[in-house]
Amino acid sequence: MLVSGCQVFSGSEETGHGLMGTGDLGLIIERATGSLLVVNTTSHSVINRIEGLGDLSHASVVYSRDARYGFVFGRDGGLTKVDLLTQSIVGRVIQSGNSIGGAISQDGRYVAVSNYEPGGVKVFDSKTLELVADIPATYTRQNGEAAQSKTVGLVDAPGNRFVFSLFDAGEIWILDMPDGAENSKPEVTRFDAGKAPYDSMITPDGRFYIAGLFGEDGLSMLDLWDTDAGVTEILPNYGKGEQQLPVYKMPHLEGWTVADGRAFVPAVGHHQVLVADMNDWSLVDKIPVQGQPVFVMASPDNRRIWVSFAHPKNDVVQVIDSQTRKIIRTLEPGKAVLHMEFTPRGEEVWVSSRDSNRVTVYSTHTLEPVAELEAQKPSGIFFTSRAHVLGL
Amino acid sequence: MLVSGCQVFSGSEETGHGLMGTGDLGLIIERATGSLLVVNTTSHSVINRIEGLGDLSHASVVYSRDARYGFVFGRDGGLTKVDLLTQSIVGRVIQSGNSIGGAISQDGRYVAVSNYEPGGVKVFDSKTLELVADIPATYTRQNGEAAQSKTVGLVDAPGNRFVFSLFDAGEIWILDMPDGAENSKPEVTRFDAGKAPYDSMITPDGRFYIAGLFGEDGLSMLDLWDTDAGVTEILPNYGKGEQQLPVYKMPHLEGWTVADGRAFVPAVGHHQVLVADMNDWSLVDKIPVQGQPVFVMASPDNRRIWVSFAHPKNDVVQVIDSQTRKIIRTLEPGKAVLHMEFTPRGEEVWVSSRDSNRVTVYSTHTLEPVAELEAQKPSGIFFTSRAHVLGL
Repeated sequence: MLVSGCQVFSGSEETGHGLMGTGDLGLIIERATGSLLVVNTTSHSVINRIEGLGDLSHASVVYSRDARYGFVFGRDGGLTKVDLLTQSIVGRVIQSGNSIGGAISQDGRYVAVSNYEPGGVKVFDSKTLELVADIPATYTRQNGEAAQSKTVGLVDAPGNRFVFSLFDAGEIWILDMPDGAENSKPEVTRFDAGKAPYDSMITPDGRFYIAGLFGEDGLSMLDLWDTDAGVTEILPNYGKGEQQLPVYKMPHLEGWTVADGRAFVPAVGHHQVLVADMNDWSLVDKIPVQGQPVFVMASPDNRRIWVSFAHPKNDVVQVIDSQTRKIIRTLEPGKAVLHMEFTPRGEEVWVSSRDSNRVTVYSTHTLEPVAELEAQKPSGIFFTSRAHVLGL
Repeated sequence: MLVSGCQVFSGSEETGHGLMGTGDLGLIIERATGSLLVVNTTSHSVINRIEGLGDLSHASVVYSRDARYGFVFGRDGGLTKVDLLTQSIVGRVIQSGNSIGGAISQDGRYVAVSNYEPGGVKVFDSKTLELVADIPATYTRQNGEAAQSKTVGLVDAPGNRFVFSLFDAGEIWILDMPDGAENSKPEVTRFDAGKAPYDSMITPDGRFYIAGLFGEDGLSMLDLWDTDAGVTEILPNYGKGEQQLPVYKMPHLEGWTVADGRAFVPAVGHHQVLVADMNDWSLVDKIPVQGQPVFVMASPDNRRIWVSFAHPKNDVVQVIDSQTRKIIRTLEPGKAVLHMEFTPRGEEVWVSSRDSNRVTVYSTHTLEPVAELEAQKPSGIFFTSRAHVLGL
């Protein structure tokens, strides 16, 4: 009994419950079954499945600063805390009727969730999942009525801040969380933005917050180092003179990429990746691709840009050389490619194919597959190294 | 017995042996006693001490990709593998007479060590510490004799490469490790560099390898995206017309910083931080500081540059605003400040004061101390988040 009792906890990297480092772990969303796979990126293996997470049809994950716990934002307003070491749910709250993502504060104390229904942002204690702030995101409609706005593009920023956009109100808000001093309270600063911001990204240093606009050809940018300057418009009229196509799936702007001083941006409603000069945010190039881009992501060494696509041309991934801006390879990982995630130092990339029920691992050097994992309708892939990165 | 036997492994974050995430752990070198402290950056606490690591008078650490194991490079040629979860030594080899640092390959399979005596680089399997490659770094002296060069500035680069400099030979070498294909062997490519390269850094994307030169006022740069161009000289004659001071301690170039498109570089033998434009590597500014800089490090949000100094003015740290390039605070953490390490997302920085036997944790926002830890003659501080970063 003594031996068997202890072996549960004394195990090697092979067992699901043993002592193990959490640096090479990750979670894969199984969107249709409300479950997660806990995976190991060194051995290309599934450690275990966690079930009971509700509606994961548009889910994402952030991590605690010890890289042990994942916070899963479900579509049904569920916020679930899972333990990767025991592969179990350790906390769950239904905090709204419909949510669209979240973030964890720089110091790891707060988890914030962005809500569609009833709108606004809620902030929770990352240890206990107790509510610590409720920001309803109210605004005044043109007819004078007060309303709550859907919020989108919620990210963390340096200084224990959250930044998010109000889809209905056309605004960007900064939420300063308390610094621990007595009586300090959350504080909101509001900025006018463009029409209908639908998603956002923040540069890796946490300086520039950029919102994509559904209501216009252009983007809204807020320089968090100089908020007095307010929101400015960048890449205006990028689709001028071109016919916009029906938009099947909005691009994910968190996937935006900065490589070699240039930003690579998915164009909304065009078969193009836009290239902007980050010194003055001017448009320097449009790279034609085979469909409407959804994720546009640079490998950690900035050499190549990997692009996934919207329905109906979503069975391929195209790889672009960041220097020549030419497509160097078109890959076919499976049906309905939904997400890509690079290993932390970039030697491999994991790609989910929802309708092929698999995740394919590619070498970023050879561009050849090196492993394949079975998964039930996989969508998002999130590695624990995100615990250490600003703005993800 | 059953209960007590199992509790060792069932513990919370508070115990030294329980299940715990490894994302918020780190090692502090205790240089005089040949020991390490295993620390937790969330609770600002020491988990345990590991002893028996030999001469740690100039030691550094890299991490396995699961962030569980540290590889410690000692001055006496010792390469020691320690387990942060059990706080114990799991492997140790004396691989040379005198070593000066090391690196781990992008995929985590290889650990390379840079040697002074007898010179050259040795590469080990990260699981077993078995020798997999011995690169003697031979060159021909002016008198025609063959000799082995001291090697310095060893870093990992994308594509499972190591790059290092030959102090005696004035060369930079790229070592390509096998990619797993049958019969593939390590391959070396040699480049002429400037006189007496003494340390190096690589930019965060793994593109530019830059060596400081003891033999001239200037730096040697190799663009790994365009090795046909060979080594070029940057920042030539940066101290021209100024009297160079006696050099008490060579700067550490790994600490070099890239912030906002500019590189902040410690000047050798001058009370200055040099500022270079990364577009053309021209010198754009010299920031006067209170002593000879050793480490020049940007906080992860790039807002501020933290500078430590050589003997005899090594009891202070100066903090520079990266935009205005003005010193905004002079801190006095203790006697003989040797190293600084930012928490992964940059909310705090840990500073070791050797002769005060303590490590002080500062808030990067308020610049005030938030915690203090006792340590025996602490020098280097290394957090596990380094597992996920290229070139550290």
